[in-house]
Amino acid sequence: MRCEPGDSSLHVTYLVRAAAGDVAARAESLLLEQTVELPRSAATRDPWVADHIVGCVEDVRPAGTDLHRVTLAQPLATTAGDPAQLLNVLFGNCSLQPDVLLADVELPDAAFDWLPGPRAGLAGLRELTGVTGRPLLATALKPMGLQPAQLAALCDTFARAGIDLIKDDHGLANHPFCPFEGRVEACLAAVESAARETGRIALYVPNLTGTPDRVRRQLEFARQAGVRAVMLSPMLVGLPLLHELASESGGLPIVAHPAFGGVLRAAEPALLGKIFRWYGADAVIFPHAGGRFSFSEATCRAIAGALRAPHPRARPAFPAPAGGIRVERVGELLDFYGNDCILLIGGSLYQAGDALFDRARDLVGQVTRAAAAEPVP
Amino acid sequence: MRCEPGDSSLHVTYLVRAAAGDVAARAESLLLEQTVELPRSAATRDPWVADHIVGCVEDVRPAGTDLHRVTLAQPLATTAGDPAQLLNVLFGNCSLQPDVLLADVELPDAAFDWLPGPRAGLAGLRELTGVTGRPLLATALKPMGLQPAQLAALCDTFARAGIDLIKDDHGLANHPFCPFEGRVEACLAAVESAARETGRIALYVPNLTGTPDRVRRQLEFARQAGVRAVMLSPMLVGLPLLHELASESGGLPIVAHPAFGGVLRAAEPALLGKIFRWYGADAVIFPHAGGRFSFSEATCRAIAGALRAPHPRARPAFPAPAGGIRVERVGELLDFYGNDCILLIGGSLYQAGDALFDRARDLVGQVTRAAAAEPVP
Repeated sequence: MRCEPGDSSLHVTYLVRAAAGDVAARAESLLLEQTVELPRSAATRDPWVADHIVGCVEDVRPAGTDLHRVTLAQPLATTAGDPAQLLNVLFGNCSLQPDVLLADVELPDAAFDWLPGPRAGLAGLRELTGVTGRPLLATALKPMGLQPAQLAALCDTFARAGIDLIKDDHGLANHPFCPFEGRVEACLAAVESAARETGRIALYVPNLTGTPDRVRRQLEFARQAGVRAVMLSPMLVGLPLLHELASESGGLPIVAHPAFGGVLRAAEPALLGKIFRWYGADAVIFPHAGGRFSFSEATCRAIAGALRAPHPRARPAFPAPAGGIRVERVGELLDFYGNDCILLIGGSLYQAGDALFDRARDLVGQVTRAAAAEPVP
Repeated sequence: MRCEPGDSSLHVTYLVRAAAGDVAARAESLLLEQTVELPRSAATRDPWVADHIVGCVEDVRPAGTDLHRVTLAQPLATTAGDPAQLLNVLFGNCSLQPDVLLADVELPDAAFDWLPGPRAGLAGLRELTGVTGRPLLATALKPMGLQPAQLAALCDTFARAGIDLIKDDHGLANHPFCPFEGRVEACLAAVESAARETGRIALYVPNLTGTPDRVRRQLEFARQAGVRAVMLSPMLVGLPLLHELASESGGLPIVAHPAFGGVLRAAEPALLGKIFRWYGADAVIFPHAGGRFSFSEATCRAIAGALRAPHPRARPAFPAPAGGIRVERVGELLDFYGNDCILLIGGSLYQAGDALFDRARDLVGQVTRAAAAEPVP
C-alpha cells in the first residue's frame, strides 16, 4: 500500500516492540487503533472514511532487536482542531498497549491555527524579568505547611538576594493553612518591598491547581492582584486546560511543571519538549540529569532542544532544568544549557538554613560573573 | 522512627526497585518528595510542618528480588481537599522516577467529604436502562468519519436489536463532518424512534471531549437535548474535570474511557478501579484480557473488584470490559464478571457488515438466555 501523506498530516512515530516478520501487521493495527478503531474492512465500507480518515503507515525501520520505529501519517482532520482529541489520536488507546512508546510527533503548520504555543515564550519572559546575557535564576517557595507570612519572608530573602523568578512549590495548593489569595498577596507585597531596596522586581509565580473552575478563579485573582506569570502542572490539571488558558486573550505567561507526567511510555522530549510547548507553556520545568530523577543528559538535551527549536508558528519556550540541582553544579549547567535557560534551584539553597540569603546571593553572583566572563553560546 | 498514622491519613503503596540495604533510605526520600520536597532537616525547621505535613513510612516489605512494597502514610491535610492536589501527593513528582510504581491507595472516609464518587453508579445505571438479572450490553458508534445521519442509522440498528447502551466511539469529537450537536440530536431521535418499535429505550451516551469550556458546552447541550448519561476520557480532559462534573448538582452519570491512561507505572486497578470511581465515574471502560490489549485476567479482576467493592461513602461503579471482545467470548465473560458488568462490544459486531442487526440481536438473545438459564453470581 502506498503512503503519500499530504501537507496536512500528523507524522507520529512510535517505538514498537515487534519482530521483523510481525511489524507490518502491528503497524497496520496501530494505524487503525488510533482513529477508526475497527478492522480495515469494517472501517473502509464508507469511501469518504477510507480516503479522509484512515491514514497510512509512512515508514518502518529497525531500531534494535525486535524493535522498530513506526511512523504513521494521520490526517489532521482526525483531530477536530481540538487539543484533547489531538492527544487521543497521538496516544489514546495505544498508550494502554505496552509494546508501544510514543517516540516523536511532527505537526503540520496548519495545526497552529488552533494550537496557541507560548504566549510570551523565551523572549517574553526575559522581558518580564529584565535579564539578558545570562540564564534566569529561579527558586521555589517551600515546604508545604508554611503560612503566607512565612513564605513571604522567604520571598523577600530570595528577591533581595537577586533571584529572578520565585515560584510556589507545585505542592502549594489552596490549603486552609495557606490559602491561595493570602499567599499571593503576601508574596507580591514581599517582592515589591524588596524591589524598593534592589531597584529590580523579582517575578513571583504562584501555582494554580485544582479543578478547571478553581484554576480559573485563582488565575483571575492573581491577575487582578498584579501577578505577571503563573505556574501549573498540565498533567495534573489536564493538558486541554493549559491550551484553554494559553489561548485566551489577556492571559498570563505559564510555567509548566511536569508532575504526574510519568506517562513514561511517551518519550520525554515529545511530551515535555513539544506537546507542552505547543499547548502553550512559556517555560517547562524538568529534572536535569544527575539529580533526584533519572533523565539522561541526552534526554535533557533533547527536551531543551525541542523547547527552543525555531518554529514557523510557535515561539521558543524556556527550558527550566530542576530536580535537585546543587549550587556547586551551576557551572556545569551553564555549559550544558547555555544562556537561554531558567536554572531552578530549591533544596540546595534551603540547606543553607539561616545562611539562605547569603547562599542565594552567592549563586546570583556566580552566574552573573560566569556569563560576563565567558559569554556562553 | 515510629509511624502511627491517624484516621485521617492516606495510605499510599508503591512498588520500589531497591535492594534491602537501600530501601529504608529510598522510602524516606519518597516520603519527602511527595509533599515537602526538601531534605528532612530543611523541611522540619518549622515544628508545625514536621507534625502535620511530613507523613511517615508505615510499612516496607520485600516483594521480589530488589523489589519492595513501601507504604507511606501522608496526612489528608496535604491534599487541600482538591482532586488535582490529591493526584500530586499520590504520584506527582515520583511518577517521573522510574524505580517507583504506584501500586495501591487507601483513602480515609473523610476524603469523601469532597470526593464525589459515582453519581448513579451500578444501581443508577441499571435503573436508567431498566435491565436487571443480566449484564448490560453496550456498543460503540464508529468509525470516525461518518456523518450524524449514518451514526443515527447505526444507533437505530443497535437499539432495535436490543443493545442497552449505545455510546459514541471515544474518537468522535466535534468534527466539522460530524458536529457534536447534530450527532446528539440525530442519535437521540434514532433511539426514540426505535423505542416505539421495541417498547424500551436504549441509552445513547455521547462522548464529551475538548477543553473544559468545550466539554461544559457539550454537556449543557446534551442535557437540554434529553441525554441521560455521557462519556468522557478523564486522562485526556483531565481527572479534575471529571471530579468537577461529577460533583455538580443536576449533572449526568458519566462513563469513563481509559484513553491516554497509559500511566502504566500506576497499577491499573489503582488508577482505573479506584481513582476513576472516587472522582465520579459511574462506569469505567477497560480492555479485557485477551483482546487487542494486554491487561491480564488478574488485572481485570482487580479493576472490576475495586469498582464494585462496598464502600462507606462511594457507590459501586460498573466495570465495562471492552477492547476487542469477540461475540464468541461472551459466555466466558459472563462467567468472569458475573451480572454486574457492562459488556462493551464493537468491532466484533461491525465485522458482520450488512448482517449487523442480526448479529447484535443474537448477542442480546444469547446474554439474556444465559442469564435466565443459569443466574450468574
